[in-house]
Amino acid sequence: MTDEEPRRIDTYWRAANYLSVGQIYLLGNPLLREPLTRDDIKPRLLGHWGTTPGLNFCYAHLNRVIKKRDLDMIYVMGPGHGGPAAVANAWLEGTYSEVYPDVSYDEAGMRRLFRQFSFPGGIPSHVAPETPGSIHEGGELGYSLAHAYGAAFDNPDLVVACIVGDGEAETGPLAASWHSGKFLDPVKDGAVLPILHLNGYKIANPTVLARIPEEELVQLLDGYGYMPFLVTGDDPASMHHKMAAALDQALDEIAEIQQGARSGRTSERRRWPMIVLRSPKGWTGPKEVDGLPVENTWRSHQVPLSGVRDDPAHLALLEEWLRSYRPDELFDGAGRPVEEIRAQAPVGERRMSANPHANGGLLLKPLVLPDFCDYAVPVDAPGKAVTEPTRQLGTFLRDVIRANPSNFRIMGADETASNRLNAVFDATDRVFQGELLPTDEHQAPSGQVMEVLSEHLCQGWLEGYLLTGRHGLFNSYEAFVHIVDAMFNQHAKWLKVTRALPWRRPIASLNYLLSSHVWRQDHNGFTHQDPGFLDVVMNKKPEIVRVYLPPDANTLLSVGDHCLRSRDYVNVVVAGKQPALDWLSMDEAIAHSTRGIGIWEWASTDGGADPDVVLACAGDIPTLETLAAVDLLRQLFPELRVRVVNVVDLMRLQPPSQHPHGMPDRDYDALFTTDKPVIFAFHGYPYLIHRLTYRRAGHDHLHVRGYKEEGTTTTPFDMVMLNDLDRFHLVMDVIDRVPSLGGRVAHIRQRMADERLRLRAYTREHGQDAPEIQNWTWPH
Amino acid sequence: MTDEEPRRIDTYWRAANYLSVGQIYLLGNPLLREPLTRDDIKPRLLGHWGTTPGLNFCYAHLNRVIKKRDLDMIYVMGPGHGGPAAVANAWLEGTYSEVYPDVSYDEAGMRRLFRQFSFPGGIPSHVAPETPGSIHEGGELGYSLAHAYGAAFDNPDLVVACIVGDGEAETGPLAASWHSGKFLDPVKDGAVLPILHLNGYKIANPTVLARIPEEELVQLLDGYGYMPFLVTGDDPASMHHKMAAALDQALDEIAEIQQGARSGRTSERRRWPMIVLRSPKGWTGPKEVDGLPVENTWRSHQVPLSGVRDDPAHLALLEEWLRSYRPDELFDGAGRPVEEIRAQAPVGERRMSANPHANGGLLLKPLVLPDFCDYAVPVDAPGKAVTEPTRQLGTFLRDVIRANPSNFRIMGADETASNRLNAVFDATDRVFQGELLPTDEHQAPSGQVMEVLSEHLCQGWLEGYLLTGRHGLFNSYEAFVHIVDAMFNQHAKWLKVTRALPWRRPIASLNYLLSSHVWRQDHNGFTHQDPGFLDVVMNKKPEIVRVYLPPDANTLLSVGDHCLRSRDYVNVVVAGKQPALDWLSMDEAIAHSTRGIGIWEWASTDGGADPDVVLACAGDIPTLETLAAVDLLRQLFPELRVRVVNVVDLMRLQPPSQHPHGMPDRDYDALFTTDKPVIFAFHGYPYLIHRLTYRRAGHDHLHVRGYKEEGTTTTPFDMVMLNDLDRFHLVMDVIDRVPSLGGRVAHIRQRMADERLRLRAYTREHGQDAPEIQNWTWPH
Repeated sequence: MTDEEPRRIDTYWRAANYLSVGQIYLLGNPLLREPLTRDDIKPRLLGHWGTTPGLNFCYAHLNRVIKKRDLDMIYVMGPGHGGPAAVANAWLEGTYSEVYPDVSYDEAGMRRLFRQFSFPGGIPSHVAPETPGSIHEGGELGYSLAHAYGAAFDNPDLVVACIVGDGEAETGPLAASWHSGKFLDPVKDGAVLPILHLNGYKIANPTVLARIPEEELVQLLDGYGYMPFLVTGDDPASMHHKMAAALDQALDEIAEIQQGARSGRTSERRRWPMIVLRSPKGWTGPKEVDGLPVENTWRSHQVPLSGVRDDPAHLALLEEWLRSYRPDELFDGAGRPVEEIRAQAPVGERRMSANPHANGGLLLKPLVLPDFCDYAVPVDAPGKAVTEPTRQLGTFLRDVIRANPSNFRIMGADETASNRLNAVFDATDRVFQGELLPTDEHQAPSGQVMEVLSEHLCQGWLEGYLLTGRHGLFNSYEAFVHIVDAMFNQHAKWLKVTRALPWRRPIASLNYLLSSHVWRQDHNGFTHQDPGFLDVVMNKKPEIVRVYLPPDANTLLSVGDHCLRSRDYVNVVVAGKQPALDWLSMDEAIAHSTRGIGIWEWASTDGGADPDVVLACAGDIPTLETLAAVDLLRQLFPELRVRVVNVVDLMRLQPPSQHPHGMPDRDYDALFTTDKPVIFAFHGYPYLIHRLTYRRAGHDHLHVRGYKEEGTTTTPFDMVMLNDLDRFHLVMDVIDRVPSLGGRVAHIRQRMADERLRLRAYTREHGQDAPEIQNWTWPH
Repeated sequence: MTDEEPRRIDTYWRAANYLSVGQIYLLGNPLLREPLTRDDIKPRLLGHWGTTPGLNFCYAHLNRVIKKRDLDMIYVMGPGHGGPAAVANAWLEGTYSEVYPDVSYDEAGMRRLFRQFSFPGGIPSHVAPETPGSIHEGGELGYSLAHAYGAAFDNPDLVVACIVGDGEAETGPLAASWHSGKFLDPVKDGAVLPILHLNGYKIANPTVLARIPEEELVQLLDGYGYMPFLVTGDDPASMHHKMAAALDQALDEIAEIQQGARSGRTSERRRWPMIVLRSPKGWTGPKEVDGLPVENTWRSHQVPLSGVRDDPAHLALLEEWLRSYRPDELFDGAGRPVEEIRAQAPVGERRMSANPHANGGLLLKPLVLPDFCDYAVPVDAPGKAVTEPTRQLGTFLRDVIRANPSNFRIMGADETASNRLNAVFDATDRVFQGELLPTDEHQAPSGQVMEVLSEHLCQGWLEGYLLTGRHGLFNSYEAFVHIVDAMFNQHAKWLKVTRALPWRRPIASLNYLLSSHVWRQDHNGFTHQDPGFLDVVMNKKPEIVRVYLPPDANTLLSVGDHCLRSRDYVNVVVAGKQPALDWLSMDEAIAHSTRGIGIWEWASTDGGADPDVVLACAGDIPTLETLAAVDLLRQLFPELRVRVVNVVDLMRLQPPSQHPHGMPDRDYDALFTTDKPVIFAFHGYPYLIHRLTYRRAGHDHLHVRGYKEEGTTTTPFDMVMLNDLDRFHLVMDVIDRVPSLGGRVAHIRQRMADERLRLRAYTREHGQDAPEIQNWTWPH
């Protein structure tokens, strides 16, 4: 560095800190042109100061290296509570005023900037979708590093600086994320520069990593595979020198690793550099308040001076604090940052606050998609031939991978093959930078499939990948996707907010393929049986969430293609991997999945009108049991008028007022009637169907069967019997609810009950389902 | 070790391996007295061989040290898929036949043992509640080490051996769990001995930790604060020596750490020992099948020989494999393990399969509970005075802690003070073994409050603590409890299964206190606003789950006391921390929370009969808004007959057929009527109320307001306005639904709408709620 540089960085840093404190406290008097008065102070003081000066410090230093090296860099801010920092820097760099012209680049804009922060009608207190330059909210902690890696994959020229707070570092997802480097290809991917910020405290507790001996900390980071550079202190002047030196070393290392790998000189995994910044919490803030230490303690976590409006001493301390940054040196007469500060920021898209990677929709290229119809299974007649639906989808995905070698990834927690998407390995490998052995299959230092036994990493990587403008799919066992319930919630919230921000361009949807589902985890048992993710999903904003339950292979292909083309949604597709009957030809599947719901005339016996009973179904196994029940009903009660309704798109059940896919009452009533019994066989917990349909006229006649939390290691058919979803029980349900069947049916009902007992005894004797169950097909 | 010992351990190990393979494959011919035939083989082969020999190896070696040192030890088996190992050892030790006499300790019992495994009507394929000696299912991976530490807390004489699979080690929760040692007090707590089992592969992938250089692995484990002892190899004879030596060293270290700390000689945190066992996956199984390597590859993960019934070559390989353990040397003529093997196992409660800590209900002592009425806030009249409910509960919890110094813990993710349970720090500290500084408050090397910024650790520790017979509470921000949705699911499943196992004694309930809830996260914003955990909870078995929404401080105390006394439930209590109006005196609160639901006559104007409208509410903020709406209605429509129903126990809304707390229709109808409009203000997502009440006669007249996923950083009242839950909107809802109000009310409806606009404008101008909102009290 030149002698001038540290001073310039410090000036920039002071400006960012000043703007941060201003956001937390000030309504007016933004430049302190007048003495501070009570009326200048917000009535409710909301914000997190503690982490903010460290975030600003890193930002200031990263700007130096961006300019010096012309880096393409984005900034992921794990301690997202430090929202004032992100906003302050975006404003300093001019981006904020470009995105929000009313927050202008002058004194009036600064006043508005301050006032809007954590203020009703203004902006949130945390980094949020509203914040330019961010792909990471950081409200719920733990996902910064996974997001950072996700952003770096297939972005060879990008460097993602990722601030990891020492609070966040205690979370499970973050602890696992350190290993992400073993899945990053230095040739094809960009770089992540983690900056572990040890400021020592959380809300009220010290942090673990700040309170272990430095030797132990270094061992840990070495053990994660990094080369840590330590920057420790509290004296700004010397800290600027240390940080600049550490960043130079780290970026030299990154350049060397990338050049070595890309030139073919090195093929072994290298230790990636990282920085450990140990600086005081609430650095440069009040040292002591009311006789208690504040700087460098947990007391600086939120608002260090809380009584400013009522306590003149606090007010004086605040003014002293603000003036310690010497605002008159930082801003010109118009309230604009002085030239020296403006010159510290990079220009145009090199500004981290304006980097297009942080507004991924700007860079989004549509997937090159082969025609999914080319992967159809031939279906001459329904319910005769058998396909493994996810295996079929795998052939389509294989060619999606081939056509999009650096724009599409598949994530999975060691289950991509188990979920029978094996065909993708004809096109790519599982990326892994650890040691490879001859016995490994489809493992390579580069690849478009990512597998690690952490749903958190799969989700976090994919989110980072999508948010920076690419496409992907997360395949999971259905039960274990609950592990990322909280991450899903946060992503859905992010998408919801972006809908109201025209400058955020739409990104590819987050696609879940849930296979190995509740009904076919008979071999793994009760822990693996849980269809409740759908309930979590349905709580989020209707304009964001989509749930599909394709009943067979062709419908899955049609739905899969639709999901890969969509934007700004979370799509959840539940599909089986086990051999299952094909019901629909591709033409029929397209028509059916486009409508999302429909009568299967070929299975119905109501002649298109006036059924005695409606058998509805959603999900592959419920569809199978429903059609097998219809088969029985045809034999038992040839005169009974049965209608079969199959649901692919769960949202269709709702009224249009509740969901954009919702059906008008007239259409719903035309399918389900308003007065006839409806026996609904559902994939998940039955309540979900009730909650979707309770407004419908026919709801009182709706009887739902689904998973009622019964299961163990047993046979597939025993699973449906345990939950009263089996064909015989469905027939019993029909008998119980169709009065026209009259008294003559008691013995038939008993026969059904006996049949269930017989079949249960069969499985207990033979250890598998009876052949007539295993081999049942739709009669022709 | 004597020369004899390794041989004896090997004999025991061979027996355990034989019994494991037998469980996966054999229906009959358990001792191979006849040549193996197709008919001896199960028709469906289900099980996980790969991890099993390693689990058996550790078990055999731990038995040696238990006997040698008279250890009180339990065995937590992270790779729970290795169910055959747990069952095999329990049977070898005689425990299995004691618990399940029909699986006798002889040839007939062995036949049954084999047949029942993964067989309909038998036992699950994984370690499960059915497995004696287990507190850990391991179906969903990641929680073994947290469970192990939870078991060790406040159990000074216990050693918890915890096998961590290298697949599981990739998960976030496990990665975070390594730091648990920093929260374990060597004086008051027992010891955890982690055994990281690197067998190299997951289902289809290599594992991360098995594929990094050994030096890096050791750095990592050093960095986590451990002293790793490495045991590597595949030759059984030399591995027995290495493992025995490593275990002796590790247990010596544990003894020394404990003695040092307990004698006061050392006060610094020491490195706890751990073992890294690197052995082949599927060790001692088939080396090669169909020309492909199996042992030491992912192909041994489940059933290494899959075609045994149809392929004579596979059948021969299986027979060869089984006979390689020399069963004739292992079992006597009656099929009992030979004396040498029996002598290897500890006796009585020293057997890990019979250790009472692994059946915690056996050891459960009821909490010594002070009279919660002593902590009541005086309430002379409803809705006048103000209390912070959780702060009041904190005073009760403080004395619970004092009365139960080694039987009760509070867990929280850095939020115990933020959730205002501060009083507990008068009685105890937050336990932390990291460096302590003078600025720290209520941090000490010992304490009954555990705080770490990981909901996974809080939950996992508490589960381990409860499962070994103690009591506790997990306090969390409401939104972030979603992080442990999956762990909750698994614990609820465990409890459900134990209900059918009389030998498993009831344990203390898992108590969640959710504060900092959706309506009062106005300062933290949208990411912190999510009441959906209730929906996840309500999907589990009704006999397990309980949800309480106490409307004020006294009701919270009453509910809290009830939860701490309960057994085998998951109790979820949602309560505010902000100052809130007191509604009920303690006598009233007890009566109300005992009924779980009731009419608030003092707020109603229907004279005890025939209301025009019912205003129902559940949750503190909905109750506030409802009563404020009633206040308005009284002024606007003095003649309107309003009934107020408050719900504490959400399950009361269900029919008795759906939940044990469910109300009969008659009682429900008496509260809600069958024909009058009901405006229900609910804490969570409104659908939940519909799903609970859809069977009720009056459901068509039920209109629910709740959280509809709208929020940001704003004021508390703006939060309810954003979601149409505010008092003015409730009045509008009444106007819209009570026909008797007639046409004269359009202007009043408009006034309400205008009032909302005025109040929103007020908050946007002043940054806080209008005084009349902030200061509203119930009129007297």
